[in-house]
Amino acid sequence: MSKQQPTILVVNDDGITAPGIKALMETVQQLGRVVVVAPDSPQSGMGHAITIGKPLRLDRVELYDGVEMYKCSGTPVDCVKLAVNRIFRGKKPDLCVSGINHGLNNSINVLYSGTMSAAVEGAIEGIPSIGFSLDDYTLQANFKPCLQYVRQIAEQVLQRGLPSGTLLNVNFPAGDNLKGIKVCRQAHGKWAEEFDERMDPHKRPYYWLTGEFQLNDQGQDTDVWALDNNYASVVPVQFDMTAHHAISVLNSWGL
Amino acid sequence: MSKQQPTILVVNDDGITAPGIKALMETVQQLGRVVVVAPDSPQSGMGHAITIGKPLRLDRVELYDGVEMYKCSGTPVDCVKLAVNRIFRGKKPDLCVSGINHGLNNSINVLYSGTMSAAVEGAIEGIPSIGFSLDDYTLQANFKPCLQYVRQIAEQVLQRGLPSGTLLNVNFPAGDNLKGIKVCRQAHGKWAEEFDERMDPHKRPYYWLTGEFQLNDQGQDTDVWALDNNYASVVPVQFDMTAHHAISVLNSWGL
Repeated sequence: MSKQQPTILVVNDDGITAPGIKALMETVQQLGRVVVVAPDSPQSGMGHAITIGKPLRLDRVELYDGVEMYKCSGTPVDCVKLAVNRIFRGKKPDLCVSGINHGLNNSINVLYSGTMSAAVEGAIEGIPSIGFSLDDYTLQANFKPCLQYVRQIAEQVLQRGLPSGTLLNVNFPAGDNLKGIKVCRQAHGKWAEEFDERMDPHKRPYYWLTGEFQLNDQGQDTDVWALDNNYASVVPVQFDMTAHHAISVLNSWGL
Repeated sequence: MSKQQPTILVVNDDGITAPGIKALMETVQQLGRVVVVAPDSPQSGMGHAITIGKPLRLDRVELYDGVEMYKCSGTPVDCVKLAVNRIFRGKKPDLCVSGINHGLNNSINVLYSGTMSAAVEGAIEGIPSIGFSLDDYTLQANFKPCLQYVRQIAEQVLQRGLPSGTLLNVNFPAGDNLKGIKVCRQAHGKWAEEFDERMDPHKRPYYWLTGEFQLNDQGQDTDVWALDNNYASVVPVQFDMTAHHAISVLNSWGL
């Protein structure tokens, strides 16, 4: 750690008033100077969306004593972009933490998650970045049992950095029986959608997205396995989406 | 190709009235039975966003003679989910093509792009999927020079399939000097944001996202290099975001 106090950007996708971001902010405050930039409304499932067709608001708010906080009208990724460009102004933070999300972001959920996309954007900016999520969707989620691990992982990343082009996806099981941490890969899985069709008062149909997670992976080295066995899962994530192993296959096609 | 005519799902992020989706639809109609499901408004930059907090509309439209078309109030990924669940109903299409996007989706843009995220969602559903983009943002974009390549690539994917867990990101340079196709990797690059700050009539600031693409990659095996040299770039993309090479690094931390 540098002798100067490190600066830490805290973001999320559940919105600036979510209990999860308060728990995360209070935990990393022990490690450095914190700046919070979070959406002014819930942005779950926003993935890596950015706001192109309309302008953004970024306003200072005073929610907790002595904490520099801003609410943003955009997506989680917009929050990171605005933080880097308008608040830190080129002097990048030493760490970007996102969450703690109310709900898991393991397996394929890394793609849909605004929490994780904010952390991905931090990593694209060259900032060591971590997304944290807890297996509890409720406002009453108990973050306490995982906070010592949040602190430990954040501290390690501040000290050691992360391999170039990577970030961390950290998920916690609910409850206080946490057995420790497992470094994992993303489990193969997908959502099987079941749209709930309803009729509006004008007899026109509309659809609610709903569905069930399907695990297609029996590996014991996955995030799903770790969480099922009461471990916190830590998956290193990259934003190079190239399927390098498929390049030779395609070259053999003679396109 | 199976003896039955293949079914082809056509999606995009520029919206159902964009010239790019018309060009794509007309091209793949030569290969099978087409169903178009596209957003009812532009959804550029939506990334892998899905709609959770509000319901979705999906309505049949008649834009072009004899083509089964639907407009959807959601994101490009919502379009794919609704198509699979409500239109194809379990009998998945043989191919999913997305685009042709008005504007490039090379390098890091694969993450922000609604066009590419729709193709990623197709691949998650197990459907051979391809995203197509042209380096021309305008409504007047000339898609003609790339259509023979669109057809050729779509035909090959229908015949051969794609390696498990992968899809294709195909980008075309503008103009009619196309020299051929290069199979590439995603170039390392990022957007350097420059938010344009303005004042509203009530003296409150607002921000427009703008910026410049920064290439951090001198490789001649990248999509950026191919496009700069008048080749169409074909990048195999995967949705396993695990940085497998970083797992051993993290294990050495003793978390």
